[in-house]
Amino acid sequence: MSLKGFESEKAEIASTIIADNSCDGVYSHGLNRFPVIIKLVDEGVINPHTQPVKLNSMGALEQWDGQLGFGPINASIAMNRAVELSGEYGLGCVALKNTTHWLRGGTYGLISANAGCIGICMTNTFPNMPPWGGTESRLGNNPLIISIPQKNGRHVLLDMAQSQFSFGKLQTYSLAGKRLPVMGGYDADGDITDDPNAILNGGEVLPMGFWKGSGLSIAIDMVVSALSVGRSTFDLRIDRQDTGISQVFIAINPVAYAGKDYADTYIANMSEYIKTTSKMAGVSDILYPGERVVKEREVNLRDGIPVNPEIWETVLKI
Amino acid sequence: MSLKGFESEKAEIASTIIADNSCDGVYSHGLNRFPVIIKLVDEGVINPHTQPVKLNSMGALEQWDGQLGFGPINASIAMNRAVELSGEYGLGCVALKNTTHWLRGGTYGLISANAGCIGICMTNTFPNMPPWGGTESRLGNNPLIISIPQKNGRHVLLDMAQSQFSFGKLQTYSLAGKRLPVMGGYDADGDITDDPNAILNGGEVLPMGFWKGSGLSIAIDMVVSALSVGRSTFDLRIDRQDTGISQVFIAINPVAYAGKDYADTYIANMSEYIKTTSKMAGVSDILYPGERVVKEREVNLRDGIPVNPEIWETVLKI
Repeated sequence: MSLKGFESEKAEIASTIIADNSCDGVYSHGLNRFPVIIKLVDEGVINPHTQPVKLNSMGALEQWDGQLGFGPINASIAMNRAVELSGEYGLGCVALKNTTHWLRGGTYGLISANAGCIGICMTNTFPNMPPWGGTESRLGNNPLIISIPQKNGRHVLLDMAQSQFSFGKLQTYSLAGKRLPVMGGYDADGDITDDPNAILNGGEVLPMGFWKGSGLSIAIDMVVSALSVGRSTFDLRIDRQDTGISQVFIAINPVAYAGKDYADTYIANMSEYIKTTSKMAGVSDILYPGERVVKEREVNLRDGIPVNPEIWETVLKI
Repeated sequence: MSLKGFESEKAEIASTIIADNSCDGVYSHGLNRFPVIIKLVDEGVINPHTQPVKLNSMGALEQWDGQLGFGPINASIAMNRAVELSGEYGLGCVALKNTTHWLRGGTYGLISANAGCIGICMTNTFPNMPPWGGTESRLGNNPLIISIPQKNGRHVLLDMAQSQFSFGKLQTYSLAGKRLPVMGGYDADGDITDDPNAILNGGEVLPMGFWKGSGLSIAIDMVVSALSVGRSTFDLRIDRQDTGISQVFIAINPVAYAGKDYADTYIANMSEYIKTTSKMAGVSDILYPGERVVKEREVNLRDGIPVNPEIWETVLKI
């Protein structure tokens, strides 16, 4: 059976990733994205018929070509391969070129953590953010993912784009008629602003930490494109969409010397330590990275996953 | 010959690193730090007599104990070992526990880049920054270093602490009687401020990118302490200094499939691309990470390294 050109095994991997993203409360990269994905398949941006191919390897380092297949399938295969390499070499790194948007980077951090490995993943994107000092989009927001496994499955998961706010967050503030809590971008005149509408209507988002996120974005882009011998954000400037992008997946497995629960004590101590700090007014809890995801997953697994009725109707009609 | 307990070979490695930091324009971690280092040796915080020791290995991953030796010597040995592993396995990772302050993280990124490898280094520190939402120092500023080699030696070098401003930068603004260009911390009452004196006098620095730098700091701390089976920032809360800290050094070498100048095209294109963006008022150039270092090094190698006369007098008297 083929679904929109995906053979059934691939369709199952893809639909599981999409459903898991909704289950984890990352609705923007779950079911809500499904109609867009189908559109990209119909337009030929995502090729459902291809397989990622290993081009080169040197011990624990491999270079793969994603052949413009569906990003989450390519990225899963790449991270699973990195985990496999880490079983043999202690760590493994798969650099993937010619892939498409991976939806939510956290997915691949969790693959690594579920296998007991520390995971580091990076991707570039098309230019969607100005470098610090500039007012035109010339950098990607290039997400960085770091995961640390916990034996009970409540993994630490940093999933961090290099822009201070995602477009989804800007829209949320805009719809609520609220200002951003901190400066978030430039208006159409190039002035820094905390007005989400001014940023959305002809403005630009700010790199997180100003010069810091700007520098980290450049470094990530160079690492992923150099290791995969793939496209950099510079090369992606023409199409202005995340097709033919470059990614890196690293899995590190110290279990041989550190035992199976190697991260648990650190996570427990640091988590307790940050929670017991005195807090800013209005703050009741301080979460470790990924803790919100763990909580949303537990609620959604118990009560069911909330679904936007309009999106659901759209999906049923596809 | 022994200098303050360092045998001559070690003394030479250490003094070269310190001189190179000054030469690269990072004066705070060069000669200016020398009297502090001697004090720490005298106080027994840094042990000049020890050697770092390999405790465990699994292919391309190794765990080392720094035995509280001088941080820059330990870190150089660790990064050189990671480079060596990357020659055999494509990439290598050395996790180092029980070490002391590495001075400037960029030093080890440059070791990797000079060997033609991409370098990733991380360290934790004692608690010196509040988590986002908190007002007490419970996180380290945990620098992250990423380096990408260029054949001409003008390497890309991100050297990024997770605080928006270093203490050195706060002091610079304070001495100049200036406000910070963006919000940089909390005053003694816990209110966010751009007044460097309010932060220095009983306040706290802000994580860069607010919640983003806070999350990245936690993730880095967990990675370095889990892989090295070493101390986390939580464990460093009692001594409140960078002794017995944990670090990770990764070198990645795709030269087998990507050629010797694998990063040059990406660096050239992205560098040109960010420089030609339209700019904020008052901005004349946009630099890639590490470009300022390259320029300062070239000027200092040509004209000599500027030295603070008071520091020089102090050093001569040691």
